[in-house]
Amino acid sequence: MYKGASDNLIATYVPAGRQDASEPMSKHAPKSSDEFEYIKWLRSELPPSGPNLEVGPGDDCAILRVETDKLALKIDSVIEGKHFMLYEKGVRRPAVLGPSATPEEIGRKAVTRCLSDLAAMGATPVSCMVAVTLHTGAPVKLREELFLGISKTCATYGLSLAGGDTQSWDGPLSITVSMIGAMNGVRPALRAGAAPGDVIAITGSLGGSILGKHLRFEPRIAEGRFLAERGVSAMIDISDGLSGDITRICEESGLRFKVGADIAAEAVPVSKSARRLAKLESQGAERALHHALHDGEDFELLFIVRPNRWKQIVKEWPFDVPIRALGMMRPLKKDEPLVRILKKGEPEALEVLSWVHQL
Amino acid sequence: MYKGASDNLIATYVPAGRQDASEPMSKHAPKSSDEFEYIKWLRSELPPSGPNLEVGPGDDCAILRVETDKLALKIDSVIEGKHFMLYEKGVRRPAVLGPSATPEEIGRKAVTRCLSDLAAMGATPVSCMVAVTLHTGAPVKLREELFLGISKTCATYGLSLAGGDTQSWDGPLSITVSMIGAMNGVRPALRAGAAPGDVIAITGSLGGSILGKHLRFEPRIAEGRFLAERGVSAMIDISDGLSGDITRICEESGLRFKVGADIAAEAVPVSKSARRLAKLESQGAERALHHALHDGEDFELLFIVRPNRWKQIVKEWPFDVPIRALGMMRPLKKDEPLVRILKKGEPEALEVLSWVHQL
Repeated sequence: MYKGASDNLIATYVPAGRQDASEPMSKHAPKSSDEFEYIKWLRSELPPSGPNLEVGPGDDCAILRVETDKLALKIDSVIEGKHFMLYEKGVRRPAVLGPSATPEEIGRKAVTRCLSDLAAMGATPVSCMVAVTLHTGAPVKLREELFLGISKTCATYGLSLAGGDTQSWDGPLSITVSMIGAMNGVRPALRAGAAPGDVIAITGSLGGSILGKHLRFEPRIAEGRFLAERGVSAMIDISDGLSGDITRICEESGLRFKVGADIAAEAVPVSKSARRLAKLESQGAERALHHALHDGEDFELLFIVRPNRWKQIVKEWPFDVPIRALGMMRPLKKDEPLVRILKKGEPEALEVLSWVHQL
Repeated sequence: MYKGASDNLIATYVPAGRQDASEPMSKHAPKSSDEFEYIKWLRSELPPSGPNLEVGPGDDCAILRVETDKLALKIDSVIEGKHFMLYEKGVRRPAVLGPSATPEEIGRKAVTRCLSDLAAMGATPVSCMVAVTLHTGAPVKLREELFLGISKTCATYGLSLAGGDTQSWDGPLSITVSMIGAMNGVRPALRAGAAPGDVIAITGSLGGSILGKHLRFEPRIAEGRFLAERGVSAMIDISDGLSGDITRICEESGLRFKVGADIAAEAVPVSKSARRLAKLESQGAERALHHALHDGEDFELLFIVRPNRWKQIVKEWPFDVPIRALGMMRPLKKDEPLVRILKKGEPEALEVLSWVHQL
């Protein structure tokens, strides 16, 4: 069990005599570092909230007007040492670990991760709330830059910032974002729904996001909406890695009729970053493909679609990011692997080497 | 800066050769402790979701049907060492620090804190999402009991559990809950709105919550709804302490016309716990009053209401928990203290000694 924080008092206990004491533990006087001063500053720096937010941060709850019948809801945390390494002056990192993150990039990533999940449902972003836990005594500059990263990202994607919570503790930096999107009459694109014969397709390219993309990716909101409107069979964003995420599509879609996926190795869009990372590891094309198949946090959309709809989508696709067919769904026969990769037409089982969180 | 986690790799990097290695860092094989196994278990233990949750946990987002025009939104974190001390076998705690918490109590508190904020707006609970960050290697029993605490509390209060996120790290236990309530046509009870001549009133009694109530309090949902329906001028839940929370009402209500509050010392409902805590500190009634005025986490409703409505509310009050008038709002004159306490009719400034978070 972690013991780091167990010497602190909890919030409700005010020791006798604290009111006239000047001990360093004192939590009484609103100082520049207290939560309320910080909240005042936060409120002055909020993104434009739009007409939907009737009551913004600062009351017991926010009040949001909604005009849709269906909401998409998401909660997600990014934590120090796992989703980002905080930039430290003078610290050199091995090139294969990619860059450390500025507070603003961390704030951006916390919001865009949720946006990517909304995109994968076909939802339009409406509003979000953010809970931040800082290390006690974290510099004012850090929390201000962190908040500006959050606030600017909300403004960019038309999200109101409905509320927040800020805590500090003897532990690492953690940001939890909860987000609300509106379906506005579009049927949500689920993970379940892929059927044999469906095309497996993807936006953009994959692999090596650790070299920077995981901090600066573009959530595919308009693209996700476009695809959901056109009735894809299933959709997911690539957060853990292609091998794992296609496996989840197969599992979720296979509750009634078992389905598997075949992916053509030569069709996998290997990113420049995947190639660069392989090179940094003194390896070649096979390793770059490995990164494209298994690396996480590319936040591209993996979607499954009936062949006739796929043709229509290719014809009408209005976005800069390319789309590409990777393979096809198939009926899953007994003892067959769920996901196979075809190398020069020869199928072999694709192992799930993408991210699995250990608790 | 906290350094504890900085040796870990971040989520996106899969070192070369990891797939065939048996090193202890391996995150490949779904074991009983991996996130997906845990999620499967969680999904099997979810509270009844009701017809509103079209898509529950497990997809990119949850999909919630809404029939109200206004939602109340809240996010809040409880963190180890600040909002609870985790129960440890064999560890004896000083009596004035109250009991440590079981994982189930922690889960309950994380949800009921948000419920209390919804109550203070007059909102009806609809749905919530929960992000948990555990210490790496936390016992399965801990996270299961924690989740059961969350799940049972959701079931008790009619909340669907729409989604979650579970992480682990080299840090303390943290639970963030985001919650959605429906206003269903009732005007939200804000912190702003208190006017001179309004009655200051409260549910229940105050002080000494550290002796146990902060883990087991009853969020005043039906009471808050009843009060909001009857048009209170302002309402807040007592989370930081009466002195601080009435100050916030005065500040928020005083944006146009400055208002202050007078509280009669003899009218403050001092709880049994406040008296017991004073006794544990070898002090008397004055100290018990101090606890009632300044302790946090009683989660009673502090509400401000016009005198004629107050009379009506007293007449119609259908709940077990008592309500009591504490004092009155007044016009704030120059150089007058914002909040005064009247002891035998003599006003003196009431200092804010309640909880102020330091960051």
